[in-house]
Amino acid sequence: MKRVGIVGGGQLARMLALAGHPLAIQCDVLDPAPDPSAATVLRRQFAGGFEDRAALEALADDCDVVTFDFENVTAQPLAHLAARVPVRPPTRALAIAQDRLQEKNYIAGLGIPVAPFMAIDAQPQLELACERLGLPLLVKTRRLGYDGKGQWRIDSLADCEAVTQALAGTPAIAEAWVPFERELSIIGVRAADGQTRYYPLTQNCHDHGVLAFSVAPAPRGEALQAQAEAIAKMLLDSLEYVGVLAIELFERDGRLIVNEIAPRVHNSGHWTIEGAHCSQFENHLRAVCDLPLGSTASRGASLMVNVLGRWPDRQRLLAVPGLHLHDYCKAERAGRKIGHLSLSADCRSKLWAQGRQMLQLAGLEHLSASLERALA
Amino acid sequence: MKRVGIVGGGQLARMLALAGHPLAIQCDVLDPAPDPSAATVLRRQFAGGFEDRAALEALADDCDVVTFDFENVTAQPLAHLAARVPVRPPTRALAIAQDRLQEKNYIAGLGIPVAPFMAIDAQPQLELACERLGLPLLVKTRRLGYDGKGQWRIDSLADCEAVTQALAGTPAIAEAWVPFERELSIIGVRAADGQTRYYPLTQNCHDHGVLAFSVAPAPRGEALQAQAEAIAKMLLDSLEYVGVLAIELFERDGRLIVNEIAPRVHNSGHWTIEGAHCSQFENHLRAVCDLPLGSTASRGASLMVNVLGRWPDRQRLLAVPGLHLHDYCKAERAGRKIGHLSLSADCRSKLWAQGRQMLQLAGLEHLSASLERALA
Repeated sequence: MKRVGIVGGGQLARMLALAGHPLAIQCDVLDPAPDPSAATVLRRQFAGGFEDRAALEALADDCDVVTFDFENVTAQPLAHLAARVPVRPPTRALAIAQDRLQEKNYIAGLGIPVAPFMAIDAQPQLELACERLGLPLLVKTRRLGYDGKGQWRIDSLADCEAVTQALAGTPAIAEAWVPFERELSIIGVRAADGQTRYYPLTQNCHDHGVLAFSVAPAPRGEALQAQAEAIAKMLLDSLEYVGVLAIELFERDGRLIVNEIAPRVHNSGHWTIEGAHCSQFENHLRAVCDLPLGSTASRGASLMVNVLGRWPDRQRLLAVPGLHLHDYCKAERAGRKIGHLSLSADCRSKLWAQGRQMLQLAGLEHLSASLERALA
Repeated sequence: MKRVGIVGGGQLARMLALAGHPLAIQCDVLDPAPDPSAATVLRRQFAGGFEDRAALEALADDCDVVTFDFENVTAQPLAHLAARVPVRPPTRALAIAQDRLQEKNYIAGLGIPVAPFMAIDAQPQLELACERLGLPLLVKTRRLGYDGKGQWRIDSLADCEAVTQALAGTPAIAEAWVPFERELSIIGVRAADGQTRYYPLTQNCHDHGVLAFSVAPAPRGEALQAQAEAIAKMLLDSLEYVGVLAIELFERDGRLIVNEIAPRVHNSGHWTIEGAHCSQFENHLRAVCDLPLGSTASRGASLMVNVLGRWPDRQRLLAVPGLHLHDYCKAERAGRKIGHLSLSADCRSKLWAQGRQMLQLAGLEHLSASLERALA
């Protein structure tokens, strides 16, 4: 019986805890919320902020290993814990992933392709970036942005002032717009002994900056898999990583460009619960608990659709043949990720009829054409 | 959010509770043990005996529906609860299944083939049974036997006295020995609106009276599936059943004979967690909670191996490619079911190499030849 302490008690912690039970791995979480998503599947919750050293230490003292379920945990207090208990993935990966400038510098420093970028601290730099990197330009805060929050698009120099005002002095990064053909992600896992495994590339469709659906394995992904795995391996090895790492990628002309990394299990890997032999959640636990890694091979083709804001009628959802429903037990709130749906079949073409129904039920019928293309 | 109360907190309750979480269904259990298998995955445990009316009522008052995880719960106190809350499956099914004589009478009364049988209350009847039903003869207590306990085999009239002594007046049933070719089971599920679904037939291999492994779908099962479903449908409909019902069958000359029924999720259906689109556990919850039934279609071929008594080395188990480990979090004790292992692949023949390894690790290498035949 192993105990894993998770800093953060959201849906990723919830699905980690659920993956742990069959292996007799029980999870504790540290979360300031009174009733976080993971609450009902835990061994124990420690209530406290993510920088609360006493709470972090209590969590560590109750567990064999500490991990985290999102990357905006401050790395410093966590690094401090490493003297008491293994902290996995390493806090260095966390520190890098939570600062977009450090992240880009680190990835580019390994020779991995990223979009051209520039640090932004004030308006003159923003105007300079427009000149150097071209328009349109993406501006993102260095820290704390996610799901399209803390991001702006500049289409002309005239936009610079408004973005400068919105930033209000927050350190930022400007990135050249990449006219990509599609968004992909690869999820890799590394064990403490250096063994690595990779799930097949996933194709992702975003809507208003938030992941709407994923198809896996990505169509025509075989030709890109080796390239994606090489990128992932460089990152995993150079960070001496232990656990699951997600890498968001753009494809352009057969080349992969890294958009960002997440040092944790990832929304674009939720399909692995039903669609792979061993899910990203189980593999993360296996890695951090020093158990052998599980098979990352896919089982047929899978589609994952996020449920945002409100739950559609469950009776109708559960009547969709083969549909799996994952309720995160979170309160409904506009735009909030409160669950996901997934579907698996022998081949991609068999996902279309039920997939379209899922999109409709999830209020995403406007993405039907995107889904049709993704399944083609 | 639905709440399901389960009478009994063993591994079946545990796997029901785990299947409930993604659907936001939480389970309570009533169990007298201080730390039953399901303890770590529950909403709440009510401590108490299965006939403790106050504890049963407390469970019912906390839940939307009450079910049970084994058939030796006394039906009477449960039936009493039905005034407060739906009890599913119906307690009539429970009452029938927990008395082998009633069970056989009921099944035979529907015109479903069973082995010839006779009620036994004293030695003269036992000797009469030997004459009428022939030798060898199986003698089983009417109540409370499971996994080969409370069962005796009579090979000659000379055995009658010893069996009579062992019975010590306990009401029993004698059954003619069926020279079956193999043991199969079918798991069906019925919704309150009468809709039924069936998993593919499973082939089971017992060792010393306890299920050792299951292969699903059963080889050459397609030809028998309609016959098995017709038997299951007759039972489900006539009992106005709601939930999962398991039926153990013998195959002889292409005909199916019912051995026994279990009004609950069943060990021979554990493969459905990874091997079917919707597991028996999820389907039981869907049925008792009035949600649409899930797909019972299999995903490739599956092998399930029970772990009895002691855990083999987990590092070695988890290194078997594609293996899923299910630890029931029960104390080790000779012969006790403490977990199971499962494996899925595109086709049966691909299960052999890892399947043999699983048997070896589970201390069941003496069943390798049986597995080879089952996978042929």
